Amino acid sequence: MADNIKFAVIGGGSWATAIAKMLCVNLTEISWYMRNEAAIEHIKKHKHNPNYLSSVEFDIKKLKLTSDINEAVAYADYIIFAIPSAFVGAELEKLTVPLENKIIFSAIKGIVPETSLIVGEHFHVRYDIPYYNIGVITGPCHAEEVAMERLSYLTIACGDPDKAKIVAKNLSGNYIKTKITDDIIGTEYAAMLKNIYAIAAGMAHGLGYGDNFQSVLMSNGIREMKKFIKKVHKMKRNINDSAYLGDLLVTGYSIFSRNRTFGNMIGKGYTVKSAMMEMSMVAEGYYAAKSAYKLNQAYGAKTPIIDAVYSILYEGQDAKTVFKKLTDKLD
Amino acid sequence: MADNIKFAVIGGGSWATAIAKMLCVNLTEISWYMRNEAAIEHIKKHKHNPNYLSSVEFDIKKLKLTSDINEAVAYADYIIFAIPSAFVGAELEKLTVPLENKIIFSAIKGIVPETSLIVGEHFHVRYDIPYYNIGVITGPCHAEEVAMERLSYLTIACGDPDKAKIVAKNLSGNYIKTKITDDIIGTEYAAMLKNIYAIAAGMAHGLGYGDNFQSVLMSNGIREMKKFIKKVHKMKRNINDSAYLGDLLVTGYSIFSRNRTFGNMIGKGYTVKSAMMEMSMVAEGYYAAKSAYKLNQAYGAKTPIIDAVYSILYEGQDAKTVFKKLTDKLD
Repeated sequence: MADNIKFAVIGGGSWATAIAKMLCVNLTEISWYMRNEAAIEHIKKHKHNPNYLSSVEFDIKKLKLTSDINEAVAYADYIIFAIPSAFVGAELEKLTVPLENKIIFSAIKGIVPETSLIVGEHFHVRYDIPYYNIGVITGPCHAEEVAMERLSYLTIACGDPDKAKIVAKNLSGNYIKTKITDDIIGTEYAAMLKNIYAIAAGMAHGLGYGDNFQSVLMSNGIREMKKFIKKVHKMKRNINDSAYLGDLLVTGYSIFSRNRTFGNMIGKGYTVKSAMMEMSMVAEGYYAAKSAYKLNQAYGAKTPIIDAVYSILYEGQDAKTVFKKLTDKLD
Repeated sequence: MADNIKFAVIGGGSWATAIAKMLCVNLTEISWYMRNEAAIEHIKKHKHNPNYLSSVEFDIKKLKLTSDINEAVAYADYIIFAIPSAFVGAELEKLTVPLENKIIFSAIKGIVPETSLIVGEHFHVRYDIPYYNIGVITGPCHAEEVAMERLSYLTIACGDPDKAKIVAKNLSGNYIKTKITDDIIGTEYAAMLKNIYAIAAGMAHGLGYGDNFQSVLMSNGIREMKKFIKKVHKMKRNINDSAYLGDLLVTGYSIFSRNRTFGNMIGKGYTVKSAMMEMSMVAEGYYAAKSAYKLNQAYGAKTPIIDAVYSILYEGQDAKTVFKKLTDKLD
């Protein structure tokens, strides 16, 4: 492995900040793109991101901060995208630097709304990036715990194991353990689907269901996820590995998850529109529910939880009634 | 199915009280044995158990309360044991009424310390009860949520499906859904093993590990449980069914779990002895850890979490050091 490989982080949110922190442990320099110029100035002056994980102090000599995505992409061999999936399309439109020969890793958990594709597929289909140059960085990992340097495990997926190893090596540290896999499709779908189950968990909580039901929901959720992913990309995988089950649990049981919060509001009686306005940003699982539901029209996997969430979010059905019916389909 | 089948509940704790409540929905009479005569008098007078789930009001006309276990056993066709596994041996020694032709269901999650057997095996080995007359009632189900009539799912296991159906039918109700299985060994081992993982989760929390690690621990825990149970009794089962994974999650994520609390104290630096004294009762997982570890000496399943808990509880090893090593074995 060459040691002078250059990394860029795309995004200014909490997960991007956590990834920048991890990379800075192992690298002498990274490029870090974010849209917000005021945040860049703040980081340069005060050594921390003012808006996310602000307790994390950076060695700013290591940071090539830029508000020009082309500068970051031109600089790097490995480009890690960590922006909300809803912004991927718009950000990529700014690109003038070619992505050819660049290695693209997605740390995004969701669906690109314009194409209804997971991020890896979006890069492959729209930008002709071959799958051996595409990878996924997945948890279970709350960025907040990376900030606190609490032990976390990442799974790095890439069709080319050498590239997965390079990314894994550069993210690893005292409090970050990594493993690699070649299941780029499965890990990325799992990361996307888990947000739908987190919305369902929030809805159940909002509707007054308790911990007994939550555990049944998660147990049915992982079985449903397995069936869905098997339809999308059949291969030998253990759905109980951390990248699938662990990622579902850390989100489904997190009271900080935006997706769970969004579901909880709807369970409590907010309309979808008012819940979105109240939250001031859209939960990834909102888009994921639509894409997963639509995709599954072709696949035909049995996905009662996804169907329930979809019917509440997109067909205006009553959460209480839908969940009552759903409980009969779970076991 | 005959409709005049008689049930007895053995035990006066929260789970016994929850089961009595469920049965009273469907039956006109049950026998209910508990040692504590003052509690019996209180229930007769005030319609609720003074010590556990005291919000649950009973129709006392339905209750044949007794402090004589022989009376309860003589009365019933189906006897549901819901006492701590540590007391099973002593309670059964009081029996003079034969258990022959009785159908024994265990709602106990643990190991009988005297024989190091799960409860079903204990009845089979010590009392010659054939396996087709032995069953298991398992969650995921906190008794507290039954008291609140929150939707819960039970799994009823018996080698004889007709008997499982009879128990399932008599426990079912508006807020209780049931399913049956023939995996009596697997469900009971799962119910026992999950307490060890709950201790591990508590230890991790006490040591300062966060939610990211907790999800990795649970994800490794269910894989470990699968390997262990497969060695004990190989059959086709989906380890992600509610009786296995759901039961693990409801306990591992519960801040009310005695096992998790016990582990948490040890993680925070209490000795095993002082944690036990402080809790004034022993967590089931304490015995389970020893039995599972010893059993596995013969089976040879890879169980790093059980081994870690055992070494801390029984070999006096330092929790912090043991967990540091354990983290390298998880993924």
